[in-house]
Amino acid sequence: MNVNVTAIKVDNGVNVEALLAARAALTEAPEAARFKWRATCEWVNGTHSRSTVQGFYGLGAEQSHKQAFYYDADHPELFAADDNGATPVEYVLVALASCLTAGVAAVAQNRNIQLRSVKATLEAGMDLQGILGIDSEVRNGFDGIKVTFYVDADATPAEIAALVAQSQKRSAVFDIVTNPTNVTVEVA
Amino acid sequence: MNVNVTAIKVDNGVNVEALLAARAALTEAPEAARFKWRATCEWVNGTHSRSTVQGFYGLGAEQSHKQAFYYDADHPELFAADDNGATPVEYVLVALASCLTAGVAAVAQNRNIQLRSVKATLEAGMDLQGILGIDSEVRNGFDGIKVTFYVDADATPAEIAALVAQSQKRSAVFDIVTNPTNVTVEVA
Repeated sequence: MNVNVTAIKVDNGVNVEALLAARAALTEAPEAARFKWRATCEWVNGTHSRSTVQGFYGLGAEQSHKQAFYYDADHPELFAADDNGATPVEYVLVALASCLTAGVAAVAQNRNIQLRSVKATLEAGMDLQGILGIDSEVRNGFDGIKVTFYVDADATPAEIAALVAQSQKRSAVFDIVTNPTNVTVEVA
Repeated sequence: MNVNVTAIKVDNGVNVEALLAARAALTEAPEAARFKWRATCEWVNGTHSRSTVQGFYGLGAEQSHKQAFYYDADHPELFAADDNGATPVEYVLVALASCLTAGVAAVAQNRNIQLRSVKATLEAGMDLQGILGIDSEVRNGFDGIKVTFYVDADATPAEIAALVAQSQKRSAVFDIVTNPTNVTVEVA
């Protein structure tokens, strides 16, 4: 037994106490847990668009990010476009990567595991015969996504694997990508 | 019959000729149509991460955007986070909005319809009882997404509705969100 061990408070920058308090509060008031997330998108030219994210609804009231966030999307020059931003499908990868990574940090905090670094690489196959209408048997979207995590933390390999697994289990974007979500598209 | 009509070339900034040539070329060489899209994500602190999008694979070779694109994601202050960027789920809405909007522009060009403006608003419901683990019957992701398009174009309402419908039919992100996609998550 090492009697010189000093208790070091783990700090991954996640306020788990606040999240646990929120969970307790929302268990008592489930209506407050019903959020609405929003984005608006304006066509710029060609395949270039600019989306804005700012307001959302939650805790029974209109809410707002500290500032508006703007995201340009476009197609690359390969498709005779101007490459003013990531493609829409790459934004899906950003969504999935950031959701799983935030989850790893939150779960690590809750399990008292100090993270030093977390990196994820994502690769998604897509056969363009789908969106180009060449082969109706080929889907428009990804044929699969592979995510690889590189985690440096004060934890065993098994603990790190469990962290990543728990993040996946609670990830909103992982659910959205792996399961069907109903989308209605209307013209005003 | 109006004999004073002058043929005006429609220009939505989409090089449809190049896209149609690509479709013809890829029909002959389907292997070139197999793309791989990528993103890498580095944890910054707390729920804040920064994703990078630059390289991809297609037309049988490694490709690159003109520059690297960086995307910060975070949770809002409401969740005791620092709000350094949109939330991961909002990035999904950006992906869907930009994909459908690029499609509207491309289809309009192909149908010889001049666009003046295109705007889309998206709203997605999400019950946080899912990701917080309060109720295992509640899914982690969106309970649905509503997209509303506002299109000003030299076209009838029926033609505009058909534009939006065709964009939806060929949208990679619409397919990814509405249908299941396999995701494998590994720890290196």
